[in-house]
Amino acid sequence: MSTATPAETSVASWVAHAPTGPVDTRRSPHAALRTLDLAAARLRGGPLLQRQQTCLRVSLAFGAEQLEEHGNFHDLKLTAGLAQGPYKGPVYIDSDLHKWLEAVAWACADRSNADDPDVRPMLTRTIDLLAAAQAEDGYLNSHFQVKDPAGRFRDLTGAHELYCFGHLAQAAVAAARGAGDAKLLAVARRFGDLLCQTFGPGQREGAPGHPGPEMALVELYRQTGERRYLELARFFLDQRGRGFFARERQANDPARPVRDPSYWQDATPVREADEVVGHAVRQLYLLGGVADVYLETGEQALLDAALRQWADFTQRKMYITGGAGSTRHGEAFETGYVLPSAATYCETCAAVAVVLWAWRMLLATGESCYADVMERALYNNVLAGIGLDGRSWFYVNPLATDGPVKRQAWFGCACCPPNAMRLLASLDHYLATGDDDSVQIHHFAPATVVAAGLRLSIETSYPWGGHVHLRVQRADGATGRQTEIALRLPDWSAAHELRINGRPAASEHARGYVRVRRVWREGDDLELRLDMQPRWVEAHPRLESAGGRLAIQAGPVVYCIEQADLREDEDVRLLRVDARQPLGPVWRGDLLGGVMTVEGCGFVDPGRWTGQLYRPLSNPHPRRRAVSFTAIPYGWWANRVPGPMRVWLPRG
Amino acid sequence: MSTATPAETSVASWVAHAPTGPVDTRRSPHAALRTLDLAAARLRGGPLLQRQQTCLRVSLAFGAEQLEEHGNFHDLKLTAGLAQGPYKGPVYIDSDLHKWLEAVAWACADRSNADDPDVRPMLTRTIDLLAAAQAEDGYLNSHFQVKDPAGRFRDLTGAHELYCFGHLAQAAVAAARGAGDAKLLAVARRFGDLLCQTFGPGQREGAPGHPGPEMALVELYRQTGERRYLELARFFLDQRGRGFFARERQANDPARPVRDPSYWQDATPVREADEVVGHAVRQLYLLGGVADVYLETGEQALLDAALRQWADFTQRKMYITGGAGSTRHGEAFETGYVLPSAATYCETCAAVAVVLWAWRMLLATGESCYADVMERALYNNVLAGIGLDGRSWFYVNPLATDGPVKRQAWFGCACCPPNAMRLLASLDHYLATGDDDSVQIHHFAPATVVAAGLRLSIETSYPWGGHVHLRVQRADGATGRQTEIALRLPDWSAAHELRINGRPAASEHARGYVRVRRVWREGDDLELRLDMQPRWVEAHPRLESAGGRLAIQAGPVVYCIEQADLREDEDVRLLRVDARQPLGPVWRGDLLGGVMTVEGCGFVDPGRWTGQLYRPLSNPHPRRRAVSFTAIPYGWWANRVPGPMRVWLPRG
Repeated sequence: MSTATPAETSVASWVAHAPTGPVDTRRSPHAALRTLDLAAARLRGGPLLQRQQTCLRVSLAFGAEQLEEHGNFHDLKLTAGLAQGPYKGPVYIDSDLHKWLEAVAWACADRSNADDPDVRPMLTRTIDLLAAAQAEDGYLNSHFQVKDPAGRFRDLTGAHELYCFGHLAQAAVAAARGAGDAKLLAVARRFGDLLCQTFGPGQREGAPGHPGPEMALVELYRQTGERRYLELARFFLDQRGRGFFARERQANDPARPVRDPSYWQDATPVREADEVVGHAVRQLYLLGGVADVYLETGEQALLDAALRQWADFTQRKMYITGGAGSTRHGEAFETGYVLPSAATYCETCAAVAVVLWAWRMLLATGESCYADVMERALYNNVLAGIGLDGRSWFYVNPLATDGPVKRQAWFGCACCPPNAMRLLASLDHYLATGDDDSVQIHHFAPATVVAAGLRLSIETSYPWGGHVHLRVQRADGATGRQTEIALRLPDWSAAHELRINGRPAASEHARGYVRVRRVWREGDDLELRLDMQPRWVEAHPRLESAGGRLAIQAGPVVYCIEQADLREDEDVRLLRVDARQPLGPVWRGDLLGGVMTVEGCGFVDPGRWTGQLYRPLSNPHPRRRAVSFTAIPYGWWANRVPGPMRVWLPRG
Repeated sequence: MSTATPAETSVASWVAHAPTGPVDTRRSPHAALRTLDLAAARLRGGPLLQRQQTCLRVSLAFGAEQLEEHGNFHDLKLTAGLAQGPYKGPVYIDSDLHKWLEAVAWACADRSNADDPDVRPMLTRTIDLLAAAQAEDGYLNSHFQVKDPAGRFRDLTGAHELYCFGHLAQAAVAAARGAGDAKLLAVARRFGDLLCQTFGPGQREGAPGHPGPEMALVELYRQTGERRYLELARFFLDQRGRGFFARERQANDPARPVRDPSYWQDATPVREADEVVGHAVRQLYLLGGVADVYLETGEQALLDAALRQWADFTQRKMYITGGAGSTRHGEAFETGYVLPSAATYCETCAAVAVVLWAWRMLLATGESCYADVMERALYNNVLAGIGLDGRSWFYVNPLATDGPVKRQAWFGCACCPPNAMRLLASLDHYLATGDDDSVQIHHFAPATVVAAGLRLSIETSYPWGGHVHLRVQRADGATGRQTEIALRLPDWSAAHELRINGRPAASEHARGYVRVRRVWREGDDLELRLDMQPRWVEAHPRLESAGGRLAIQAGPVVYCIEQADLREDEDVRLLRVDARQPLGPVWRGDLLGGVMTVEGCGFVDPGRWTGQLYRPLSNPHPRRRAVSFTAIPYGWWANRVPGPMRVWLPRG
C-alpha cells in the first residue's frame, strides 16, 4: 500500500498517473483493493462483451439521437447562445446528457476492435458545447441559466442542481481518463470551485436533494488532487439528517405539504443510519458517496453505517435479481421483506447504483460478498433493463408481469438509458483489482488482465459454464518474485476445484477468495471450476411475495419463464413447478444471441380458477396437467413477443 | 312486489310506515328483496350479538368520551355559539360524530335487554346541539361555519362537506327509525333542501370528493318520499368522470400538482366503469350509492356497471378476509391480484363499505353471492377492526405482521371506530329479508325473525358449528297459506342437508338459496346442516402474496396464527404448514370470549435463515422441526400479547 497521504502528494504526481476507470483507488489510503489502469483489464468475449459492444455500436449513437429529439442538446445550445426557441424538458435534463457523455468518454478508450465506431467526434462536439454554455463564474446548468436564473441554488431539495453537477464531473473525469481530453475537466473544476466557494462550513448550508455529487466530488479529488472537493463531499454527507430539506421547502413554499424526510435520506444523520430508506437511487448513490469518502478519509463511523445499511439491504430489502426499491410510490424502499414481484419498482438506475455502491464496498473491504451482489445486480436487473437491440429500455424491472410489457425507446425522465450505457462502456474496470504484489479477479469473463507484473488471459464460458482458465504470462519480464492471484468464490457455488497446470492444487482462502501465491511461470494455467448446476432457490419465509414459491438460478444468473416458451394453453400465470424433477441446462445458440436455458417440469392449473380468488385445497388437484417448461435468463427477458413472465413460481 | 311507483305514493303513506333499519327497500320498485321492519329481526345470541352488546354497553359511551376529547362536540358548540375557544380537528371532523350518532340512534331501538344502557339522553343532547348549530339557510358544517365561512362549497374535491352532510342524513334517518325522534330529520332535510337548491342540472355542477351522500340521499328519499333527494343522488353520480374535480382544483390552486383522477373515481363516468379503482372507501361508498339509485330508478346501466365492478373486486381485488384496498398510498385499490399481506391497507371502513355495497347488491338481485361476501367481510375484516374490549380499533388490517401491533383508542382521522359502531348497532337489519309471501335468511345466528306471517326462532352455534334450526310459529294466526322460507347456501359449504321436523327433505334451489315453500304449521322445525369442517384454502396463483401459500377457513371464518399460540422457539414468521396432516376444530370457551380454534401441524425453519434472503432449496430441509399449531379466528386476533401473526403460510 502507498504510505503517502493525499495531502503529501503533489498535484503534479496525480496528473502524471496513467489513466484509470471510473473509480481510482490507486492512492486511496483506506482502500483494501487498488483499481487498475484503464488498459489493464479488457473484456475479450462472452455476454458482457456482447452487451458492451451493442452499447458502443448502437446505444451511444441512438442516445445522441434521443438527446437531440428530447431537447437536451437544444437546451445547452440555448444556454451557450447558439440556438433559439423555448426551453425543453425537466429540471434535471442536463444529467441525462452528462451520463451519456460519460459513456461516450469511456467508449473512446482503445479496445483494439475495428468494429467499434469512432465516437470521439460526439465527445468533442459535446464538450465544446458544454464549455460554451458555462457561465462566467463557472456555473453550468441549462435550466437555471435559461429558464430560471433567479432560482440558482434556491431549491437544492428538488431542483437536481447539484446532482447535474455530479454527472458533469463524472463525465469530465471519464473524458480525461477514457479519451485523454482534459477540456471538460477544466469546466467541471470551475463549477466545482464555485460550489466549494458557496457551500461548506461558514458558508451556505445545503446538500443535494438527489445524492450523486458526493461520488463525483471524491473522484474529482482523486483526479486532481484538490482536497477541497473531498471536503465538500464530506460536507454534503454531514448536512443530511439535520432537517435542511424541510427548512428549505418551508422557506420556499410554506403551503406545500411536508414530505417524509426519509425520501431524501434526511431523517437520520448519515453516520447514524441503520437502514436503507426512501427513494432507492438516492439512498444507494448516497451510500456510494459514503464509501468513497471513507476510502479517502478512513472515518470508521462512515464505514460502520454503510456496513449496517448493507446488511439491511442484502438481508431484508434486496430482490433476487439484485434489484432495489419495492414501490413506485416515491420510487422507494419499503420496510423489510416487502419485495413484491409485480407491483415493484427495481429501477434500472437503482441496480446500477447497487453495482456502484457494492464496488466501493469491495474496494474498501476486499470481501467477496460485495462482488457477489454486484454480479447479481449486473447479470439480472441491469441487463434486464437493456434491450438486446441496444435501443430499448426498462425503467422499472418487475419480476412478474401479467400482460405484455415492452421496453421503451426513451423516457420523459430518461435517467436509466444513459446510466446503463455508462456502466456498460466502463464494465472492464470492474473485472479485477491489483497492485505490485497481487491481482484479484472479481468477475469471470473472457478477458485479459495485466497486474502485479502478470498478464492473465482468461478463457471461460461463464456465466453459462463454470470453468475459468487463466493463462499466465509475465508482463514485466521479471522472475523469481512471488505474486498472489486471488479468484472470487461466488456465494452460489456449493463446491469448487482449483487446478494448476491441470493438477488439483492446494490454495488459501481468505475474504471469500481462493488465493494462490507463487512464482508464476510463463504459460502457467490456473483453472477454477465452479458449480453452475441450475438450482431451485427458495426465499425467506418472511418474504411474502416469494416465500412458498421457487425461483431458478444457475451460477449468478436468475431465470424466468416467459409465455413465449410455453404453449398457448399453458398459462405461465397459472404454472406451478415440480421441484422433485431435475432441472437441466440446455444451450441455445439460436436464442437471444445465445443463452443457456433451463428445462424443468411443472403443472398447469385447470381452468377452474376462472372467477375465483380462493378455493379449498385439493392437492394434487385432480385436473392439473403435467407440462415441461423452458426458463431463460431474466436479464434477457422481454426480447421476443411480449407476454406474461414469472421469476417466482408456486410449487405444484 | 309493489306496483306503485314512488311518485304515485303520497308522502303521508311513507310516514305512516313502521320504522325499519338502515336500508328501506320495502317500496323500492326494483328491489328483488324487501328489507324488514326494525323489530322484525333480532339477534339473540352468538358472537355477533356479543360484539353488538359490547358496542352498545362500552363503545358508544367510550365514543362519546373520545368525541369530547377530540373536539367534535366542542366544534359544534362553537358553531351553535355555546362555547368559545379555538376550532379543533380536521375538516371532516363532524362526520365522525354523525356516524357515532347513527350508532346511538340504532341502539335506542328496543332490544328487550335490561343490560343494555339507555343511550337516549346521548342521542337527544346531540340532536339538540346539531339543531342549534344549523345555520339559518339549513347549512350545517362546523368547519365552514366557524373556521372558514368563505370556503363553503368551494372545495367539494377535498373538503368532505357533502360527505359530512351524508353522515348527518344517515344519522337523522336512524334517529327517526331507531329512536322515533324526527328532530334531526328536519335538520337534515333543511340541509338537503339547500343542497337541492344549489346543485343539479341548471344549477352548480359538482359532486362529493368523498362519496357517501349518494346512499344518504336515497335513504332520505326513502324516508320522506321527497324525490328531489333521489334526483340529487343521481346528479352526483352523473357528475363523476367528467373532470369536475380537476377543474375545481385547478380553479382553487393552479400550482397544486394534479392528482390521478381515479383517486376520486373521476377517471371514468359511473356507468362506464369496469373496475374498482382509487381510494377504496370512496369507491365502495360510491358503488353503494350506485346500487341504491338503481334500486329506485331501475336504470340498467347503473346495475351493469356495479356488476362489472363487483366481478373486478371479488375476482381480482378482494382479500380473503373480505378486505379492500392494497396500499396505504392513496388508501387505494391496486391493479388486480396485487393483495400484499403485510404492506396492505384493508381499512376497517372499507370492509364496512363492502358490507354496505354487498347488501344493496343482494337487495337488487337476490343472489346469495353478495351475502357470501358480506359475511366474509363482516366476520373477518370488520370484526378484526374492533377490539374485544370495545374500546380499541384498527384502522388498517394487515394479514401478516412481523412485530407487535396494537389497536388504538382513537385516531386523528377517526372514521373507522364510529363506522364499526353504526354497523354493529344495526346488525340485526342484515339478517333477513321478506315480504308477505316469503322470508329469506341471509345470515345465520341465534335470532328471531318475523316475516311473511311467520315467527322464526333460529338456534345455531354458527359460525362455530354448521347446524341451523328454525322453529316456526305462525305470527299472524292465519293458516292454509303457503309461504316460502329461503336459506342461504354459503359458497364455502361443500355439502348441505335439509331436514324438516327431523326428516331429510327435498327442496328447491335458486339464486344460491335452498327454498322450502309449504303451509308451515306451528312448531315446525326446519334444519339446515352446513359443512363447517376447517379447510386449507389456496389462492389463485396470480395472487403473488398468497399464491403458493395456504390459509385456513372454517365456514365463513378465516383463521390466523398468532405468536401467542406458539412456543417462544417456534417463530410464526418462519412457520410452514403441513397440508397432508388433518386440521381439527377445538372449542375453547376460555379463549377470547369463546372461539373455535383449529389445530394443525407444520414445521419451523432452522435458524439458517439468519442473514439470508435466498438459499438453494433443500426439501425437506434436514434441520426442519415438526410442530403443532393452534389457529384462531382472524376477526379475534390482536386481543392478547402483541406479536407476529400470519394468515397465509408457506407449505413445509
